Amino acid sequence: MTRLEQQMDFIVEIDQLKEITRQTYISSGERKETDAEHAWHFAIMAVLLAEYANEPVDLLKVIKMALIHDLVEIDAGDTYLYDEEGAKTKAERENKAAERLFHLLPDDQGKEFDSIWREFEERKTPEARFAASLDRLQPILLNDATDGKAWEEHGITEEQVRKQNQHVKEGSVRIWEYLQKIFDKNIEKGKIQRSSS
Amino acid sequence: MTRLEQQMDFIVEIDQLKEITRQTYISSGERKETDAEHAWHFAIMAVLLAEYANEPVDLLKVIKMALIHDLVEIDAGDTYLYDEEGAKTKAERENKAAERLFHLLPDDQGKEFDSIWREFEERKTPEARFAASLDRLQPILLNDATDGKAWEEHGITEEQVRKQNQHVKEGSVRIWEYLQKIFDKNIEKGKIQRSSS
Repeated sequence: MTRLEQQMDFIVEIDQLKEITRQTYISSGERKETDAEHAWHFAIMAVLLAEYANEPVDLLKVIKMALIHDLVEIDAGDTYLYDEEGAKTKAERENKAAERLFHLLPDDQGKEFDSIWREFEERKTPEARFAASLDRLQPILLNDATDGKAWEEHGITEEQVRKQNQHVKEGSVRIWEYLQKIFDKNIEKGKIQRSSS
Repeated sequence: MTRLEQQMDFIVEIDQLKEITRQTYISSGERKETDAEHAWHFAIMAVLLAEYANEPVDLLKVIKMALIHDLVEIDAGDTYLYDEEGAKTKAERENKAAERLFHLLPDDQGKEFDSIWREFEERKTPEARFAASLDRLQPILLNDATDGKAWEEHGITEEQVRKQNQHVKEGSVRIWEYLQKIFDKNIEKGKIQRSSS
């Protein structure tokens, strides 16, 4: 197989990202979004919100993270943020997926994709921390736009949203502050369950 | 409204790109893809195939074109490549959409989005010519993967595919050559109607 054929085959293979459904509803509330739709939204949010990163970021790198970060879900499936059981096996399932998928590419590109995905997962660079903030912001904006539909369906609590999204602060304090307002409003409305105190 | 609120509102507004359906089937053939899914696919193809651009390109610019290029369809709807009637009013409908949508953004970002969209449409820069090649390649790969499903449904002819995709050559001769093989194969199989000669 030529290099170009390998790349074209990979491009068709990853089309399956359009068949992975997330728990988040699109803004009309009519259906849940797909991983590919989420990745597009996340990437364009990087273009629009880069100015709010705590540290200067390489925008191209952040966008590549957005485009690539969920590819492993083609094999591993989507693990809902608040799924504690799924979280236990997530790393193993996703590592196996990365192993298969990125090896379909020519060596140099497979290594680049693998390295960008791992950098995103580890959240140790300014780009990865900022990308992680956007990855959390995106479904929260849609949950807010659909009047908390997915939160209500899953009975999500204040404690869960505060805990699972606290690292947003490490990527962008401005976005983190914005999220607090969304959480407060939706707790007030009963869309996110208030934690007993 | 603060700058950040304006940006967040825009991000929710453009979620509607997930509700614009294209004529192209996803690789499983089970449903047609959405504009948002197409934009993600196009953007990641830019990362993978930039080496085949006829001229060196600024990859970040090409990706921004991919992410932004169909936003106007939120108001204007998707115009099928082979729809001659729709083509007559396309520019007017899309200009009006750009006027409304990009004005929702803070001034500097609205101008950037508008300028990137127009640059893409005009195909006068290396980035725009290459992006246009990818925008055509993406549905052709999916048509090929689904055994010509959308081509058959619309009774697309050899003459139509050759004519409507000829400018791919201006962005990437390598990709254009690859397309010829796909066209030949699908004409041979009767998925694209052979032109009488």
